[in-house]
Amino acid sequence: MTVGKYLVRRLEQMGLRHIFGVPGDYVLKFMDLIEESSLDLVNTCSELNAGYAADAYGRLAGVGAVCITYGVGGFSVYNAVAGAFAERVPLIVISGGPRLSLRGRLHPYLLHHTIGDMNLQHDIFEKITQAAVVLTSPERAVGQIDEVLATCLRTSRPVYLEIPADMVGARCESPGLWRPDTDLHLDQEVLKEAVEETLTLIRAAHNPVILAGVESCRLSANQDLLDVIEHTGFPVATTTLGKGIIPEQLPNFIGTYFGSLANESTRKVVESADLLLCLGAWMTDIDLGGYTANLDPRRLIIANSEKVKVSHHLYDHVPLKDFLKALRASVVKGTFRGSKEEHPANSLCRPFTPVPEARLTTDRFWERMNHFITDNHVLLAETGSAAFDAVKLCLPQKADYISQTFYASIGFSIPAALGVKLAQPLCRPVVFVGDGAFQMTGQELSTIIRLGQNPVIFLLNNDGYQIERVIYDNRYNNLQMWDYTLLPVVYGAAKGIQVNTEGDLESALQEAKERTDSLVFVEVRLDRFDFSETLWKVGERLK
Amino acid sequence: MTVGKYLVRRLEQMGLRHIFGVPGDYVLKFMDLIEESSLDLVNTCSELNAGYAADAYGRLAGVGAVCITYGVGGFSVYNAVAGAFAERVPLIVISGGPRLSLRGRLHPYLLHHTIGDMNLQHDIFEKITQAAVVLTSPERAVGQIDEVLATCLRTSRPVYLEIPADMVGARCESPGLWRPDTDLHLDQEVLKEAVEETLTLIRAAHNPVILAGVESCRLSANQDLLDVIEHTGFPVATTTLGKGIIPEQLPNFIGTYFGSLANESTRKVVESADLLLCLGAWMTDIDLGGYTANLDPRRLIIANSEKVKVSHHLYDHVPLKDFLKALRASVVKGTFRGSKEEHPANSLCRPFTPVPEARLTTDRFWERMNHFITDNHVLLAETGSAAFDAVKLCLPQKADYISQTFYASIGFSIPAALGVKLAQPLCRPVVFVGDGAFQMTGQELSTIIRLGQNPVIFLLNNDGYQIERVIYDNRYNNLQMWDYTLLPVVYGAAKGIQVNTEGDLESALQEAKERTDSLVFVEVRLDRFDFSETLWKVGERLK
Repeated sequence: MTVGKYLVRRLEQMGLRHIFGVPGDYVLKFMDLIEESSLDLVNTCSELNAGYAADAYGRLAGVGAVCITYGVGGFSVYNAVAGAFAERVPLIVISGGPRLSLRGRLHPYLLHHTIGDMNLQHDIFEKITQAAVVLTSPERAVGQIDEVLATCLRTSRPVYLEIPADMVGARCESPGLWRPDTDLHLDQEVLKEAVEETLTLIRAAHNPVILAGVESCRLSANQDLLDVIEHTGFPVATTTLGKGIIPEQLPNFIGTYFGSLANESTRKVVESADLLLCLGAWMTDIDLGGYTANLDPRRLIIANSEKVKVSHHLYDHVPLKDFLKALRASVVKGTFRGSKEEHPANSLCRPFTPVPEARLTTDRFWERMNHFITDNHVLLAETGSAAFDAVKLCLPQKADYISQTFYASIGFSIPAALGVKLAQPLCRPVVFVGDGAFQMTGQELSTIIRLGQNPVIFLLNNDGYQIERVIYDNRYNNLQMWDYTLLPVVYGAAKGIQVNTEGDLESALQEAKERTDSLVFVEVRLDRFDFSETLWKVGERLK
Repeated sequence: MTVGKYLVRRLEQMGLRHIFGVPGDYVLKFMDLIEESSLDLVNTCSELNAGYAADAYGRLAGVGAVCITYGVGGFSVYNAVAGAFAERVPLIVISGGPRLSLRGRLHPYLLHHTIGDMNLQHDIFEKITQAAVVLTSPERAVGQIDEVLATCLRTSRPVYLEIPADMVGARCESPGLWRPDTDLHLDQEVLKEAVEETLTLIRAAHNPVILAGVESCRLSANQDLLDVIEHTGFPVATTTLGKGIIPEQLPNFIGTYFGSLANESTRKVVESADLLLCLGAWMTDIDLGGYTANLDPRRLIIANSEKVKVSHHLYDHVPLKDFLKALRASVVKGTFRGSKEEHPANSLCRPFTPVPEARLTTDRFWERMNHFITDNHVLLAETGSAAFDAVKLCLPQKADYISQTFYASIGFSIPAALGVKLAQPLCRPVVFVGDGAFQMTGQELSTIIRLGQNPVIFLLNNDGYQIERVIYDNRYNNLQMWDYTLLPVVYGAAKGIQVNTEGDLESALQEAKERTDSLVFVEVRLDRFDFSETLWKVGERLK
């Protein structure tokens, strides 16, 4: 047994099936071990793209991994790892590294791919991961690998393992059975008091509402959250980051809340609640609608990962999952239904009659999308106008939704679609991506085509950075106009479809429905200044 | 006067004409000021590409600049900045940032594009720049800006300025005249002793040789280096990183040295020298031919930025420029000519007769290139096989050469070509780029086309990562085959030219010669395993 093989074996034992990455000389030996294993090494066009793909994979599969070379590879993937850290995605970063024999002492020569400091990469990753280790001894490596991987699962945050080239083949003990300790620290006494106070407040409330966030999904507490939602019958909204974590066809679902940017009916119910149970929801500027949220802190109970905050006081060491379980066990079923509103998202679901010759507009595009999305779709809404508009879609019962609405790095969605399909082979990714974002990382379409994946990609071509344009417009928002529909041909697939009218859109959607086994690439041409109402409001807030 | 305007004014006073960047909400206000100024804001497809372009621009223009938004922008440009730090490129990084009012105290909400820690981006840039500052007060900003920009020029290293959104319009004093102190610390006594010892060693030497490195170019000491070379008449080789800094048609130029990977005649002269004057040359693994360099430390004088090392002892506070000037003033002209060898690069310049029907090979391609390159060309050799092969080209008197052969990040060359053309409008960039590197950042071709630039791009399509393939071959080296010649059409230009035979290459070169005012994109199809002799040796060393 060697350190490299040990690590690969543990990854297999975790249930990982794919690792994304780009080869480089410091990591080739380790990559050879991956190729020999049951794991599938998916090489992408760039390290950043590998990181985005692994992030999306981790969101759906419970853990993702990216493998890169030292220096140029590590430094290129930082942005993706920072995003995963911000949004609590369990992501394992494995980097090759220079041989220990070249860094154990003051080495007289400078090594390529470095700036001369052999600790730098680790030191930086330490700041954007939950645990970061350089494997420097075969004896300690075994324990370090186990602990770092367990930390990834326990905290649902990225971790970093650097494996120097000469450690890959170093002999170590064999991996035995492994039950990683993934439980967060729970203090029963604190939990009891937190739940009791919560119950008291619920009993006293006239119209309690739940605001559900993404953390329940990250910390394997989604079923517990659903139990609470179904059992109480309280009206429930999600944050933008939490969209998709609960079925939107639940009778008590009232839409996605993000301050004054939300549908008016959703906003009204959430903000008029005399008790708002924020379960796994983060208070981010976007989720709060650019600080337009009108929420009285004294009416809030915020339960996150390991803390429960009631009004202005804090309960520590109360994991979200335990809190939800205890709440479900104690709360009386259906006693407090609060106000039951009509599903506001339904307003988007009104019958849609295409006007074939009409120039397609942003609003009409999104209205039409409500009738296109089906249960097996995983939606990916790119940062920018796509994310702000897609969040108002009404999802079918089983459809999933991914959008990086806190870290908000544009260019995420195309590589993410690659990861999504590998994590859930039976799904069909449906991507909404702007032209600015697409120009950043769009070449990953090439890998999607190489693997014969079947996403539907709506490239919303509004000729520039629309999200910036609604804030300040200037020349820097202009992009070179590409012949986008030709790109799939460059990468080895059929030409894309260009949509200008509502009739064109109908034909494209028809083709997407019929051709389910391969990529359908749709360029949707929209006017530069065709902002949705939500986007107008976003612009007003960000000015 | 405002802090934002002050910064822009100083950039103008430095002689900067272009800034590369990608807009984002934290930096829009500052970008508006750039648009109002004499500076040209060149927006690229991604931040990483902006960094590469600014790096190449800085190499030729004396200083480059990149402007990005906070978090997602800053984290995406790290790899380019690390490369600039490693290779001593004067690069100014300007990042927008969250308003001070949102970070002066413990802010209750999470801000988009961050991971919650407002010091993180600065703290990381501090590790890969020579000076890193967040402008937090209008009073101090003025001095900080002046000092940080002077540091960039003085050390020829990247610097970082973060300008919070609410500081852009903050009032401050007007910028007066400015003479940045760019002199490195010189100790005259130490200099005197270092030069005296050097002269003594030169006098005693039978065949002294000069190894010239890139630092003379970075520290404005190129003319001083040339003076020493011409005055002494010593045989002179460059390192791979230093290629292009001296005219290769000088009678005493003997080729590019990188250990046993160099031409045999070059290697022989350098390694048999009884005194090797390493002037501005770094001892990197690639420049030492993967540790195959056979250099006796006791016969070396290594003069870098601020230190002169003779055998095993060190003189501190001796800037390279001052050392070169003093050496030139003291050394007796032509006394020690050493061994005068025939120009080894000439072996590559033997007459080339194309065999029109013959399948083009790697070796024949490079032989042919020797007859194509002209004085107004700036060559860009991408990391990987292109860099190892191009380094043996014989450059015309005035042609320039850029290759990131120490940090060696693939994907550098296409964005770099964009920067090169803006830095030297009269030149024609000639790019040699592999398909693996091209797939990383090739979309910057779109910006090259948008600006109507005229590079000649040779895409060396050997169907995968050839540089990795020569080390270990495995599936991870395979890439999706693109229809590369169609890409310029996607981006708005004419179809590229595909070259399979020597005859095809002749036609392509003819077109490049005739069509000098626009992009000429040439896909050169080479066999996967058609390694040059140099590349074979590289593979052997890296295994």
